[in-house]
Amino acid sequence: MFHCYGYAATSSDTPLAPFSFERRDPGPKDVQIEILYCGVCHSDLHRVRNEWGGTIYPCVPGHEMVGRVTAVGTEVTKYKVGDIAGVGVMVDSCRQCANCRDGLEQFCDNGNTETYNSYDKHTGGHTLGGYSSHIVVDEHFVLRIPEGLDPAAVAPLLCAGITTYSPLRRWKVGPGQKVGIVGLGGLGHMGVKIAKALGAHVVLFTTSSGKAKDAERLGAAEVVLSTDSNAMAQQANSFDFILDTISARHDVAAYLELLRRDGTLTQVGVPVEPQPIHAGTLVGKRRNYAGSAIGGIAETQEMLDFCAKHNIVSDVELISIDQVNEAFERMLRSDVKYRFVIDMKTR
Amino acid sequence: MFHCYGYAATSSDTPLAPFSFERRDPGPKDVQIEILYCGVCHSDLHRVRNEWGGTIYPCVPGHEMVGRVTAVGTEVTKYKVGDIAGVGVMVDSCRQCANCRDGLEQFCDNGNTETYNSYDKHTGGHTLGGYSSHIVVDEHFVLRIPEGLDPAAVAPLLCAGITTYSPLRRWKVGPGQKVGIVGLGGLGHMGVKIAKALGAHVVLFTTSSGKAKDAERLGAAEVVLSTDSNAMAQQANSFDFILDTISARHDVAAYLELLRRDGTLTQVGVPVEPQPIHAGTLVGKRRNYAGSAIGGIAETQEMLDFCAKHNIVSDVELISIDQVNEAFERMLRSDVKYRFVIDMKTR
Repeated sequence: MFHCYGYAATSSDTPLAPFSFERRDPGPKDVQIEILYCGVCHSDLHRVRNEWGGTIYPCVPGHEMVGRVTAVGTEVTKYKVGDIAGVGVMVDSCRQCANCRDGLEQFCDNGNTETYNSYDKHTGGHTLGGYSSHIVVDEHFVLRIPEGLDPAAVAPLLCAGITTYSPLRRWKVGPGQKVGIVGLGGLGHMGVKIAKALGAHVVLFTTSSGKAKDAERLGAAEVVLSTDSNAMAQQANSFDFILDTISARHDVAAYLELLRRDGTLTQVGVPVEPQPIHAGTLVGKRRNYAGSAIGGIAETQEMLDFCAKHNIVSDVELISIDQVNEAFERMLRSDVKYRFVIDMKTR
Repeated sequence: MFHCYGYAATSSDTPLAPFSFERRDPGPKDVQIEILYCGVCHSDLHRVRNEWGGTIYPCVPGHEMVGRVTAVGTEVTKYKVGDIAGVGVMVDSCRQCANCRDGLEQFCDNGNTETYNSYDKHTGGHTLGGYSSHIVVDEHFVLRIPEGLDPAAVAPLLCAGITTYSPLRRWKVGPGQKVGIVGLGGLGHMGVKIAKALGAHVVLFTTSSGKAKDAERLGAAEVVLSTDSNAMAQQANSFDFILDTISARHDVAAYLELLRRDGTLTQVGVPVEPQPIHAGTLVGKRRNYAGSAIGGIAETQEMLDFCAKHNIVSDVELISIDQVNEAFERMLRSDVKYRFVIDMKTR
């Protein structure tokens, strides 16, 4: 075991605070990484405050990290000391079920091991995430970070990037298609960039008229204020694909009406309440309503390579680790463009 | 114009009764058909009783008919006098929009002309359906009835057959797949037969334990009583595709939970109320919730040819036309296996 430093919450109503803990020494297939940057995902806030239930304390959040390899196990073949590497939402899975064999570890039938707040088979405790100095991960779950991209701005790709890339690829978004992105936050701004890079005509839906100019800078060809019923009606029956990134309660059915025949709307956010969906909305144009969760490890690597090729990173605001509680509050006010990233040198 | 006989409703609360009316003489592209058999679809009852609103009286229902060609227009090339021909749910569409050009006239952007209760561009009135002695239809919307199949039992294929065949084909049902059919009525019993013929392992879901034996006779490998929560739980995460044929209020979300990763549930019935769907059900296994409406004309012909090849017809109970009001009442009690068909000789 070796000593690590990080920030942890010790209960649902206390702020994150400095925290010392031990991690396992790298086993034969493990990679030890000194974390350089870690993105602040909205789910970190939900988990720390136990808003979904099931949070295990102390909780060290963080699942969007980029760092430098500081040690590798004897059987590691893909990484060497000094490499720049990334870790995302998962650090393990059963690797034997049909989903794992298909490279879709996020749907592991036996439950994948999330980067934090999951059972840790090595320690018998729970996993601790990336708001910390180091992490030790099986090389299968470590990502190669392409050269030439700012590593701080790459960090959010490990969650926000893959969560939007995976459905855009699965539903074959490309040139000649009209694609909607609902919401311009951490996920949505990546969705706009990636859909644009895939060649689509991108329309951004937002409730904030102030975001129009920024959406266009990011790659949106059109911006629609979703509170403007006339503007929404003008978009009816016209979309090949819509990526809905909103986790708060909103009218999903109104976006389904914007799909053309055989179009698909995919949600990547999970509102707490069920949505009322009328079958007629689907039947009348053979529409599809789907969901998607992050992406597999192979696809995450593909996403990173795609982003390198198209020079795509997240728009980030770098913070020191002692600003993380303030960052949570600013996230709640949507006061971030578009992802906070912790500079771990400041720990 | 020429004289026709049929049965019509003259208001939402009067029974169907004998009715005389005129139809147009066949134009250059028209086929005149003497109707031999017409299926009684549940939607006929809804429409006659104005349960969906918008019914135009007098209403001659019927959109599942098989008959003999008695005259053809000068430009008709596909049919000749004496041929056995069919007419389904549509008798016209714009034929110029993208959907019509794709052979998906059921999604015509300008609204297709339904076989009854639609605006009739030839007369300026409204279309009148198959509970009648004759019909005149543009040859594009006339179907060739394969030899060797009982024409009375073919009639329901024109609606119930294509409504189930089209989604089973679109979502590529085939050997090695586990496919659920929800409901064993006019649609469901065709779904079981067609899914079985496509090579799938078919599981029938019903609320009536009395239907188990019949479902197996029709081709179901398993029958699940949907009111048995243990039996439902045992089917979780196991279906590639589920075809939901129920129009009454029911728990669609419970069936979504039965889909494996990337599985699709397609509704062809349209319950009046919206369904509560939780995004997590879709996100957690990348599931898809879709709808489908009948099928295009080319696909309807493909379905008829498929049914001939596999010797599939509807299970029918032949009635005389003066029994149609009683048949409506029996349909409401689900007392039909599985489709009433009017023998039009009895008019």
